[in-house]
Amino acid sequence: MKQIFLDVLPLEKAAQLLLMRAASAFEGLDRTETVDVASSGSLITAEPVFARYSSPFYHSSAMDGYAVKFADTFSASEAVPLHLTTGKDAFYVDTGDPLPEGFNAVVMIEDVNIVGDCIEIYQPLTPYQNVRTIGEDIVSTEMIAPMHHRIRPVDMGAMLASGCLKVKVQKKPVVTIIPTGTELITPQQAEKGLKAPEIIEYNSVVLSSMVDELGGLSVRNPIVKDDFEEIKNAIYEASLTSDIVIVNAGSGRGSEDFTAAAINELGELLINGVSIKPGKPFIAGMVNNKPVLGIPGYPVSAYITFQLFARPLIYKYLGLTPEDPDQITAIVSRNMASPMGVDEFIRVKVGVVKDKYVATPISRGAGLLMSVVRADAMLRIPADSEGIKAGSEAKIDLINSISKINNTIVCIGSHDNTLDLLANALKVKHPELSLSSAHVGSMGGLMALKRSEAHICGTHLLDEETGQYNVPYVNKFFTPGEVVLVTLVHRQQGLIVKKGNPKGIKGIEDLVRDDLLFINRQQGSGTRLLLDKNLRERNINPYLIKGYDREEYTHMSVASAVLTGLCDTGMAIYSAAVALDLAFIPIATERYDIAITAELLNTEKISALLDIIRNDKSFREAVERMGGYDTSSMGETV
Amino acid sequence: MKQIFLDVLPLEKAAQLLLMRAASAFEGLDRTETVDVASSGSLITAEPVFARYSSPFYHSSAMDGYAVKFADTFSASEAVPLHLTTGKDAFYVDTGDPLPEGFNAVVMIEDVNIVGDCIEIYQPLTPYQNVRTIGEDIVSTEMIAPMHHRIRPVDMGAMLASGCLKVKVQKKPVVTIIPTGTELITPQQAEKGLKAPEIIEYNSVVLSSMVDELGGLSVRNPIVKDDFEEIKNAIYEASLTSDIVIVNAGSGRGSEDFTAAAINELGELLINGVSIKPGKPFIAGMVNNKPVLGIPGYPVSAYITFQLFARPLIYKYLGLTPEDPDQITAIVSRNMASPMGVDEFIRVKVGVVKDKYVATPISRGAGLLMSVVRADAMLRIPADSEGIKAGSEAKIDLINSISKINNTIVCIGSHDNTLDLLANALKVKHPELSLSSAHVGSMGGLMALKRSEAHICGTHLLDEETGQYNVPYVNKFFTPGEVVLVTLVHRQQGLIVKKGNPKGIKGIEDLVRDDLLFINRQQGSGTRLLLDKNLRERNINPYLIKGYDREEYTHMSVASAVLTGLCDTGMAIYSAAVALDLAFIPIATERYDIAITAELLNTEKISALLDIIRNDKSFREAVERMGGYDTSSMGETV
Repeated sequence: MKQIFLDVLPLEKAAQLLLMRAASAFEGLDRTETVDVASSGSLITAEPVFARYSSPFYHSSAMDGYAVKFADTFSASEAVPLHLTTGKDAFYVDTGDPLPEGFNAVVMIEDVNIVGDCIEIYQPLTPYQNVRTIGEDIVSTEMIAPMHHRIRPVDMGAMLASGCLKVKVQKKPVVTIIPTGTELITPQQAEKGLKAPEIIEYNSVVLSSMVDELGGLSVRNPIVKDDFEEIKNAIYEASLTSDIVIVNAGSGRGSEDFTAAAINELGELLINGVSIKPGKPFIAGMVNNKPVLGIPGYPVSAYITFQLFARPLIYKYLGLTPEDPDQITAIVSRNMASPMGVDEFIRVKVGVVKDKYVATPISRGAGLLMSVVRADAMLRIPADSEGIKAGSEAKIDLINSISKINNTIVCIGSHDNTLDLLANALKVKHPELSLSSAHVGSMGGLMALKRSEAHICGTHLLDEETGQYNVPYVNKFFTPGEVVLVTLVHRQQGLIVKKGNPKGIKGIEDLVRDDLLFINRQQGSGTRLLLDKNLRERNINPYLIKGYDREEYTHMSVASAVLTGLCDTGMAIYSAAVALDLAFIPIATERYDIAITAELLNTEKISALLDIIRNDKSFREAVERMGGYDTSSMGETV
Repeated sequence: MKQIFLDVLPLEKAAQLLLMRAASAFEGLDRTETVDVASSGSLITAEPVFARYSSPFYHSSAMDGYAVKFADTFSASEAVPLHLTTGKDAFYVDTGDPLPEGFNAVVMIEDVNIVGDCIEIYQPLTPYQNVRTIGEDIVSTEMIAPMHHRIRPVDMGAMLASGCLKVKVQKKPVVTIIPTGTELITPQQAEKGLKAPEIIEYNSVVLSSMVDELGGLSVRNPIVKDDFEEIKNAIYEASLTSDIVIVNAGSGRGSEDFTAAAINELGELLINGVSIKPGKPFIAGMVNNKPVLGIPGYPVSAYITFQLFARPLIYKYLGLTPEDPDQITAIVSRNMASPMGVDEFIRVKVGVVKDKYVATPISRGAGLLMSVVRADAMLRIPADSEGIKAGSEAKIDLINSISKINNTIVCIGSHDNTLDLLANALKVKHPELSLSSAHVGSMGGLMALKRSEAHICGTHLLDEETGQYNVPYVNKFFTPGEVVLVTLVHRQQGLIVKKGNPKGIKGIEDLVRDDLLFINRQQGSGTRLLLDKNLRERNINPYLIKGYDREEYTHMSVASAVLTGLCDTGMAIYSAAVALDLAFIPIATERYDIAITAELLNTEKISALLDIIRNDKSFREAVERMGGYDTSSMGETV
């Protein structure tokens, strides 16, 4: 195996190079097939479709009534009704019936009087009155659909109506996805449980679904180990049966990244690294005249490089140009620095606050799939920019629809699992509404509310002086009446300890024990304030606690420090213990409120949310079932 | 069979009544099933999905490098590098590898120097530097997706990543479509050819595709004859196996409309007529506690009543609220009167002209499926309005996307099949661009151009005085330089006669023959002007021609008058003869130009179009293959 190093390419250049090479390879393939119109939905026409027959292909009645010759009816009037003999001068026709030869108008049944074997008519008819003439809808030889048109239900109707029963369409490109990685296991294997270093292989499911959504035909291959020969063979085999091959992971430059070398040995390596973030380790080449894409393993990198490189290839195969994503202009709520020379793609949440779209970045890590799950839109900071200043406008590419964004309540602040249950309860009662949360801590949330980036904020800030929750902080940062506080829950804070509590920790007093190593939360956090208050009340000198000076930044990192043996105990909420299956010693309860921008209180979506908080019994029960929560004050305005 | 007449209901009332009854019927059904996440794409969650494991579920390296304990590295500096023994204080890790227990940071491979069995470090590390901590992406117990959420590829990824391998989803509602009509034949039967009064049954294909697109599971039943008992049986059988039944056609009040009576006998008729246009004969009821919808037979009525009544039921079954269609505000280009008390749905073409969206109505007939095929949007004139004035603004519901509309060249004017070929050639070369035509005649087209409703206009107006085409008219209506004329083709006008020319007509001179019946075009039409010029040149007195005073309004209606024996001959273009398989005697050629708003000449889309007209050989050949066209002046500016 020979390691290959090409220059990292700029995005546009890389995309163009790959598309050009793939396009010329596709041109040599027979990419069309003929199918029944009835099974052609969503396929792409491979040639224009022309009407074979006119529709209607005979003059037919547009009404229930009598077919007549309009020239016979000139003399008809209310004063002197005209009599026409049925079966001779007039024939009964239902809607859709053909007119007898030579007949060219229809008088509606409700406009005639039947007198013996005659009908009486009171008004002259005009030529083709109440008649669907030949070709009224479709004229034979006219074009129903051009080439490269995505066939919609109504197009199928028009094709059939005009006698086109088969249609030549573009074949779906076969896209084979090869997951690689020795540590990967299939979802089926994971049913028995997981142990490190196993990772559930899910990228191939995401990628294949995206292929199918775009009109491709995905094939998911079995997982291939990190072995050069095995990967090489898998790529070669796939290149024989596919139009596009995607290798997932193994595209970096680590000791087990073999894709570039494999492509290089089997064919030609075109791209080995692109100056984008995330997604830099993307590689691509041609094997057997088929494009082979090395998509990075981090899920966000995989998602973004698929959109940038695989999607255009699928469109090109189908004869289409990708539609531009829907764009809106939003106000960016934070400074976002970005290195020059790199196209950076930042997932953002978008809220409509005071009739403006506000885009707030979500954590940027390439490993954070949830940042895509939670994103409303993608913001691209181009290579020639050093970033975007807070308050400036930017174009963003929508992931969720505008109407979904308009119907979303944006919650930024401290996270609590209750918010998840609240989001769900909202969806159950109002499927059109969404509650979407970003987790930045209580203080960050209040600041976001202040900057109009959010509609509501989850907060649990203890004021040391007064012992009050949230109110002193709201009073400090907001003008009176600007924000309303509504209590969601009281929740338990406590000491997280290993399962079975092997060191027999009973409470705060034990923290000074010599055999215990503690881990703390950062200064200013609600949990730190709560701990310090508890220590003061018990007259415990914090500096006697081993590890008091070691700080973590989230409940979960405290819990995982306990789990992995970095320490014996730390303070966090009950749900963090549950999440990692650890034991929990309750110490105190704290009030978790929702701060709401007051002027939104009467909007439909906030009213719906408050109604659930105040009156939805099943929501309340679901919260209580989680454990560690007291819902007795739920919905009270503070 | 007892005929039932209920009051015609207003739209909102009818929609609400049906939805309410269907919703309470659906509530009694088990509408959920559990599926593998990998096959859950686009399905709707039936309960919230909570993470089973954290992801990552162990601390893992985010880089290729060495795992260390950050506390060991405090003293490292460029001046005094720190040495750590590999296999004891430092362990090599690839990206994704778990950290050894007690290790909590990773130094990147490129930042160390390997010295024997030690690594040299030049900077202290921070806690968890280059480490993906437990739950960094997903925390066990956190909500991945709420209930009633449409599962996207990234959601599937997040579910699998967090150990959710199965997901409870809403079942797809089974929607059975029963086509009824004695005259209907299947597309397969139509392969052998069509004869009156046969009609190819296509509505069920359109309706079932729409069902499937919305996430339902459509079943297309065989065609049922217009027979009360057979229709009743078909409805009953379908109600046993379906969640929703759709009967197509037979919903009016004609002699063969049995659906209402059948529903009434089998269950309860709720709706028998709705005050909408088109779609008034819509009916609905409950049979076996299943909603049964009688959708009218006219294709536009079928399309609109499906959207208004069937779509909300499918969403309701799935636990969803239909998303509002994307709306834009457009300037309405024509007066549109609409009766009070009726909600009218008008298909419109939308063009971006001078940065404004202009909506132009397409013919309103309920039988014109092509009016839906060609529509960009739907304009609703509510029941409490008498219509919309030209020049006023209206909200329209988009059928095509905004980006498609932005990329569309709007052509209003005289129709010629060459425009279809041009539209296709444009699609072949520029898949993102579209040429969309509305047919209102040359003069109507020039007026549309004048009112900025169109970008280009097809025109063939002969000036009697000068014998010139188009130029005198453009000079009359536009200021100099406002419009550019580009020749598309010269096309043949001639006499259309029955196949085989049974009366042996040779030319204009024969029109005065006693045994011939002629049919004329309306005064002011280009064809009438051309005929009169030819008569004058031959000194023929028009009033000696039998039928000279009978006028038709289109080429196709002249041709169909010949086909159906109303007359022996009439003047029209060659393609009208081809469309109805008639014979043609060429008389003269006329110039067919495209008038283009001058200020658009350099826009991308018009340039692309002109490039095809001027330089695309295969387009030119396709036009010539149609016959009756001379392309020698194609692309010349007049």
